[in-house]
Amino acid sequence: MNSVSNEALTQLFTEARSFNGWLTKDVSDEILKKIYDLSKWGPTSANTGPARFVFVKNGAQKEKLLSAVLDMNKEKVRAAPVTAIVAFDEKFYDHIPKLFPHAPHFRDFFTGDSKLAADTAFRNGSLQGAYFMIAARALGLDCGPMSGFESKKLDELFFSGSTWRTNFICNIGYGDRAKLLPRLPRLSFNEACKIV
Amino acid sequence: MNSVSNEALTQLFTEARSFNGWLTKDVSDEILKKIYDLSKWGPTSANTGPARFVFVKNGAQKEKLLSAVLDMNKEKVRAAPVTAIVAFDEKFYDHIPKLFPHAPHFRDFFTGDSKLAADTAFRNGSLQGAYFMIAARALGLDCGPMSGFESKKLDELFFSGSTWRTNFICNIGYGDRAKLLPRLPRLSFNEACKIV
Repeated sequence: MNSVSNEALTQLFTEARSFNGWLTKDVSDEILKKIYDLSKWGPTSANTGPARFVFVKNGAQKEKLLSAVLDMNKEKVRAAPVTAIVAFDEKFYDHIPKLFPHAPHFRDFFTGDSKLAADTAFRNGSLQGAYFMIAARALGLDCGPMSGFESKKLDELFFSGSTWRTNFICNIGYGDRAKLLPRLPRLSFNEACKIV
Repeated sequence: MNSVSNEALTQLFTEARSFNGWLTKDVSDEILKKIYDLSKWGPTSANTGPARFVFVKNGAQKEKLLSAVLDMNKEKVRAAPVTAIVAFDEKFYDHIPKLFPHAPHFRDFFTGDSKLAADTAFRNGSLQGAYFMIAARALGLDCGPMSGFESKKLDELFFSGSTWRTNFICNIGYGDRAKLLPRLPRLSFNEACKIV
């Protein structure tokens, strides 16, 4: 296969930014579904797909969410048209008979090893969070992911009595480039990688 | 911004697959650098970028890696032109003065809270692993990620005396579509998501 276009590489990676300011343009439920329906195809361990997403749009729910967000991040969350709670299902393995039908006994590996289950949920739920952000950018939206919130409180507010747990939160909308600060540096290939 | 082309969405998500079989086509060091140099722009918490990558290409190193891979995955790793060890640096925070120069004191949050540091390395190292796989696909390569290996043994073999730790491994090359099995199902939007 060939490379995608330079425009696509630019939109997904080289010119994409994490946004704090947002244009006053609505994010439709339809496009949230489109983002998920692209991102769900990304690879996860034994096709377990542990990530779950709660899209907070309405005012009362946003206020509830804000009560668990650190002060330094409150304004960013308030300004965003949608804030996604990127979560994972601690009992993701109960879906294995459906998602991995040729080997339903893989469920037993996870029910018998709570550290494996927790690591798999966190690792693969995070991978899916990244697929989700790239899919949003691919569809022309922008993201502003954050981990500056009280995780336990957020779980109590949104996931009491369920097996979903918060991983990180992510503002979604159409970013306001006028409010961007200069880009931060990254580690070079030689600092972060080795070929052996 | 608009959506990227349908061809790009297809290549990145809807028709992309995890490969077990590989064409006999070399993966150049140059393209590995290109993949990293795209993926490094993906967002991470406080721009910490904890992921590290070791690209295993040569025969002796591949044999070393294979000794830590579970039997069911050995053939896949042996057949791949490159296997990446997607790792993270446990002491990623030592780079904060360079990567987050306006707030170098953020390093103290991590040195003072080992759980926060470990969670940040694992979450953001996983996000970066996903950016890496999508960037590889964007450049026309294919991936085959795996967590079926002995993590502790792999760390001893490759990261003894260093602060890098294995997260998952990922075969990279040009996939052989003739060897693909039918695609597995995914959870629907209504099963995995809520809008509130």
